[in-house]
Amino acid sequence: MSLNTFGHLFRVTTWGESHGPALGATVDGCPPGVPLDEATLQHWLDKRKPGQNKYTTQRREADAVRILSGVFEGRSTGTPIQLMIENTDQRSKDYGDIAEKFRPGHADITYWQKYGIRDYRGGGRSSARETAARVAAGGVARAALESLAPGLTLTGYMVQMGPRRTDPTRHDMDEIPRNPFWCPDPQAAEDWAGYLDDLRKSGDSVGAVIEIRASGVPVGLGAPVYGKLDTDLAAAMMSINAVKGVEIGEGFAAAALTGSANADEITMGPDGPVYSSNHAGGILGGISTGQDVVVRFAVKPTSSILTPRRTITKSGEETEIVTKGRHDPCVGIRAVPVGEAMAACVLLDHLLLHRGQVGEAGGRIGPAG
Amino acid sequence: MSLNTFGHLFRVTTWGESHGPALGATVDGCPPGVPLDEATLQHWLDKRKPGQNKYTTQRREADAVRILSGVFEGRSTGTPIQLMIENTDQRSKDYGDIAEKFRPGHADITYWQKYGIRDYRGGGRSSARETAARVAAGGVARAALESLAPGLTLTGYMVQMGPRRTDPTRHDMDEIPRNPFWCPDPQAAEDWAGYLDDLRKSGDSVGAVIEIRASGVPVGLGAPVYGKLDTDLAAAMMSINAVKGVEIGEGFAAAALTGSANADEITMGPDGPVYSSNHAGGILGGISTGQDVVVRFAVKPTSSILTPRRTITKSGEETEIVTKGRHDPCVGIRAVPVGEAMAACVLLDHLLLHRGQVGEAGGRIGPAG
Amino acid sequence: MSLNTFGHLFRVTTWGESHGPALGATVDGCPPGVPLDEATLQHWLDKRKPGQNKYTTQRREADAVRILSGVFEGRSTGTPIQLMIENTDQRSKDYGDIAEKFRPGHADITYWQKYGIRDYRGGGRSSARETAARVAAGGVARAALESLAPGLTLTGYMVQMGPRRTDPTRHDMDEIPRNPFWCPDPQAAEDWAGYLDDLRKSGDSVGAVIEIRASGVPVGLGAPVYGKLDTDLAAAMMSINAVKGVEIGEGFAAAALTGSANADEITMGPDGPVYSSNHAGGILGGISTGQDVVVRFAVKPTSSILTPRRTITKSGEETEIVTKGRHDPCVGIRAVPVGEAMAACVLLDHLLLHRGQVGEAGGRIGPAG
Amino acid sequence: MSLNTFGHLFRVTTWGESHGPALGATVDGCPPGVPLDEATLQHWLDKRKPGQNKYTTQRREADAVRILSGVFEGRSTGTPIQLMIENTDQRSKDYGDIAEKFRPGHADITYWQKYGIRDYRGGGRSSARETAARVAAGGVARAALESLAPGLTLTGYMVQMGPRRTDPTRHDMDEIPRNPFWCPDPQAAEDWAGYLDDLRKSGDSVGAVIEIRASGVPVGLGAPVYGKLDTDLAAAMMSINAVKGVEIGEGFAAAALTGSANADEITMGPDGPVYSSNHAGGILGGISTGQDVVVRFAVKPTSSILTPRRTITKSGEETEIVTKGRHDPCVGIRAVPVGEAMAACVLLDHLLLHRGQVGEAGGRIGPAG
Repeated sequence: MSLNTFGHLFRVTTWGESHGPALGATVDGCPPGVPLDEATLQHWLDKRKPGQNKYTTQRREADAVRILSGVFEGRSTGTPIQLMIENTDQRSKDYGDIAEKFRPGHADITYWQKYGIRDYRGGGRSSARETAARVAAGGVARAALESLAPGLTLTGYMVQMGPRRTDPTRHDMDEIPRNPFWCPDPQAAEDWAGYLDDLRKSGDSVGAVIEIRASGVPVGLGAPVYGKLDTDLAAAMMSINAVKGVEIGEGFAAAALTGSANADEITMGPDGPVYSSNHAGGILGGISTGQDVVVRFAVKPTSSILTPRRTITKSGEETEIVTKGRHDPCVGIRAVPVGEAMAACVLLDHLLLHRGQVGEAGGRIGPAG
Repeated sequence: MSLNTFGHLFRVTTWGESHGPALGATVDGCPPGVPLDEATLQHWLDKRKPGQNKYTTQRREADAVRILSGVFEGRSTGTPIQLMIENTDQRSKDYGDIAEKFRPGHADITYWQKYGIRDYRGGGRSSARETAARVAAGGVARAALESLAPGLTLTGYMVQMGPRRTDPTRHDMDEIPRNPFWCPDPQAAEDWAGYLDDLRKSGDSVGAVIEIRASGVPVGLGAPVYGKLDTDLAAAMMSINAVKGVEIGEGFAAAALTGSANADEITMGPDGPVYSSNHAGGILGGISTGQDVVVRFAVKPTSSILTPRRTITKSGEETEIVTKGRHDPCVGIRAVPVGEAMAACVLLDHLLLHRGQVGEAGGRIGPAG
Repeated sequence: MSLNTFGHLFRVTTWGESHGPALGATVDGCPPGVPLDEATLQHWLDKRKPGQNKYTTQRREADAVRILSGVFEGRSTGTPIQLMIENTDQRSKDYGDIAEKFRPGHADITYWQKYGIRDYRGGGRSSARETAARVAAGGVARAALESLAPGLTLTGYMVQMGPRRTDPTRHDMDEIPRNPFWCPDPQAAEDWAGYLDDLRKSGDSVGAVIEIRASGVPVGLGAPVYGKLDTDLAAAMMSINAVKGVEIGEGFAAAALTGSANADEITMGPDGPVYSSNHAGGILGGISTGQDVVVRFAVKPTSSILTPRRTITKSGEETEIVTKGRHDPCVGIRAVPVGEAMAACVLLDHLLLHRGQVGEAGGRIGPAG
Repeated sequence: MSLNTFGHLFRVTTWGESHGPALGATVDGCPPGVPLDEATLQHWLDKRKPGQNKYTTQRREADAVRILSGVFEGRSTGTPIQLMIENTDQRSKDYGDIAEKFRPGHADITYWQKYGIRDYRGGGRSSARETAARVAAGGVARAALESLAPGLTLTGYMVQMGPRRTDPTRHDMDEIPRNPFWCPDPQAAEDWAGYLDDLRKSGDSVGAVIEIRASGVPVGLGAPVYGKLDTDLAAAMMSINAVKGVEIGEGFAAAALTGSANADEITMGPDGPVYSSNHAGGILGGISTGQDVVVRFAVKPTSSILTPRRTITKSGEETEIVTKGRHDPCVGIRAVPVGEAMAACVLLDHLLLHRGQVGEAGGRIGPAG
């Protein structure tokens, strides 16, 4: 990870501000020959697009992605892919106050203190709009994974909104696209609808926990000691705006377990090792086991709220701030496709890294031939 | 982060296996002129050293660090600093079984499947011994921070052992070195002693949660969007063996809060902004606010236990395994100095990065002069 | 240097193909507060623009650069700067033959063999058009250098066209912009005009040697052992299309000298060390001395020529090729502003790196205070 | 390239000073399963070892390399390989003068000015001894190449000593190890012997040009635009101490050629494309063609000579310096195995990079099946 780039071989650099002319992602290191067009990427952007229901910001953005380079006659060429999304709905007047006041819990103050200059319009670089570029890049990664790891599927969903968690025994992956919260538990989704409606009306916001599950991940991705698959997943998720925590598999709950309870016992199945459980979240020693890779991250509540909060101005005067404008009462909802995109990028990157260092080698388990 | 390197400008590459001749860290990018000698580094290694009490592995290692390069007449020269720790207590016979069987919950199986070869002696590269190299490198970072950010202090401590948490209202930083658990809550420490003793006798192990707190961190460290201070802290902690979760400030608890509750309100103090609380953990938009930087990470229970677990052999036969040898009932204890070391490296790295890109500039808050 | 990125802290990623919708550069790590607008960058692009006289390709490109991000109210914000140049003059019909045949001496065949797909239109990614993006990025670097190293000046010029060299005793820096060859020797420029006219009419092309001279470079830029200033300059120049050699200071001529002849003796001047000569080209041990940094690079003759050459087709048939279209008889001419741009990027990058690692420290020469 | 690291996937970090306890290389990203032991690496170090004849420094160093990690039971494990060479012959008294005076043409003054501290003993980090670590790392790269590109051979030789060049028509690769200069032209070798003897006696030194030729390089290594094979080779060679110029194939001579003369025409052979010549030096558009990769670099004469030169002291006084001690009259001789080692590292790195991004894909030339 450099300042605005992540990835080792599959490298994504995002650029752009909320209210500038455009934003986008420069994707380097994509394998050649991957079928790719704007419609495919648009599919993923549309999942994240704001204004789709009353639970997300009412800003209306087409979020139409253009491929400016690196694709020829419908396939990637192996050279950098430039993805551009023009900003079309920039109602700057909504943000007038923000030029002088710092929103509590927001990057306004630290950008100013660090750089001595900031594009305050709509949060500039720190706006959640930046994540549109990630989703576009994730679309490229998904297309490449389709060729390189055909059985791999990636699913993101929300497992907690505010203090209200889903019940895992009710999880049904088919439910996810059927409600506005990407929630696998239909009963929770219903409950959340009323809860969030009330919050929205009261001018407040709330946090969330998102889980990303990758099935069909090849064995052997990731590397000790700093290039671990879980390290890169943690960094990828933590780099998303408003994320304050990341966990793999059992996560923080593992702290409360004993070694005997936490061990995923191994038996031999027809196609190789079989695990009795997946406390590990599909990763041992930083390397994928072939089980589902499970990552969860916590998104804090949006700090742009209608409830007045105490703050100061650039000239040091104490004041109050109310963030009008079009904000998400639960920004975690739109973080679901973003988390999926980040996971896709990390998995592809590690697949290429593994192929680069190890190739087809690797250890076989079974009776000596 | 490359495979075995972390950091942007202050770069640490660790190397070495548990039972090879030596292990160590190659530290590049250290500022010149930093006072440095082996005794200073040894101080930190001694904190982590095994065998100091009955709660950590009884392996006896001097863990004596040698500086092989990059220091001249007691000061760093700006060139790579090579830190070497020889392995002196390598009772390989303890690990005989491990050559053929895979410990559940351990990297044994994934190393084998990825590389087709592994140094199984003592876990090889995946052994917790690798973290000794991190602690040595962290000692270099601390020495540099002492010159560059004199007011900065770094304190790590355990806040949860198994299911038993400390009570933050009883936290007293002076208590930390007084018990074998780096626990700031004396009552919890007492409670844990009995709990862990029982676990150890029963041949089991347990997880833990460690908190690292950095006070006096300069404002403005970290950078959007992927070079965030919290991103790099998350990666640094997640890269430590057995870590399954990382959180900043409020962390996962932020998911349950409303935006109005989670906002750290800002007022104006004599020396600049003052915050009403620190839900953010000292980081907004990836950039330090000047408040305490607070990171927590969860360590899973050691998978090397005396309780028999089902597993398979390299040739695919089902069997059981009991890991004899000298293991930590709560490896989280020794993770405390490791977490501190990682935090020191990340903070120094970001301090250099900030100085590189921004220099002395930055925005002032106060009445226009 | 990653695949399409160069630089450590000031990082430039170029993207785009000759006949795609656009090309550009993603510039990350620029210091904040640098005065920057499109007109400033356009100034440098206009120096490189084709079609300005009969000695460069007659392709007509406005080469108008747009700043899409990272600049706010006329100053850099410290976040990524996206520079886009739309391709407006794409006469694809000129390049029909190229889809099937490989031009000898051109990247056509290796791109095909490596990737199995290539954007053959106008050379795609391997077109000299890619260098427009470098010039734009170099403009950003120059603007930053103006703030950070005010006395620094950068001048590129051609010192050899085909076998015809300039006479250094006639070099006059004021002459450079007065002739179409960026030639500091007016007599050579006149001679080259006739020579190149003949070559152009005969449908052939010729190589060149360009020299870049940076004056006022601060002492201390560059770092051992692989981050040397000369290493990064060599890589930067060698990465320019058609460059086949790079040298610093005396360069290859140093091989023929004795140690006594090649030594730049040192005496003490009023402001510090004074050197009797500059065989070293301003760099010792990879670190700048404060003398002029002098880099030269050799550009091979364009392989796109009207003279028929033997080649093969994708299906392996032997044939001949004549590259019609609008090509440069001496592509070295347009390499002059490109070399300047690359030098600007490298110098700024090392200035930031030095500031990051070392800050204001450094050794003083003179009587102890 | 970071400060002391080079390579993308196969990454080498060298560390150590001339008169410290040891120096070495940390090699990360080596493929697993490569047969490797100390004897294999020692073979290459012995080629570079000083004191083998009267033409190289009389310093007596065993230069015995130890493998401290990353190799298990004779094969690489895929984890970092630490290579250490202890410094055994450190006659510090030889270098007394150097603590206060700066040798003209040497890194003494720039290290001091940059860092404000330097290990002056034997040149410290800027000593040619650093290259021993490169040779050891190159030995690892060669071993890996033997598995991954079995037909690849790498040969380095000297083609110019001072003003005296070899005659390519007399080149015989079998002659190279038969003379102390790695010279492929026996007549030139004889001539050089007398010439260098005279120089040595007169207390002077002289420069050289070395050529590295790699045969059997797979097609398709290297990547546009900054990850070019020639870019990385240029950086690798320029990073070697005392190197002042690098060229590929025709190199600077290409500047004097016309496009028609410089084109390597292509015909179809039984196994694919055949080129009429190799002006390109085996690289087109940054990607290998399958022809011999040919790199040349110029080494300046050693600045440590017995001829007195004017210089200054740290306190700014003018003085003279004579570098006693044990120095190489033509340091270029020992640069031959170093250049080979660097080329081996770059080729392996690009082989892994190519495998990572492209895998087995790539374009076929021949009749459609």
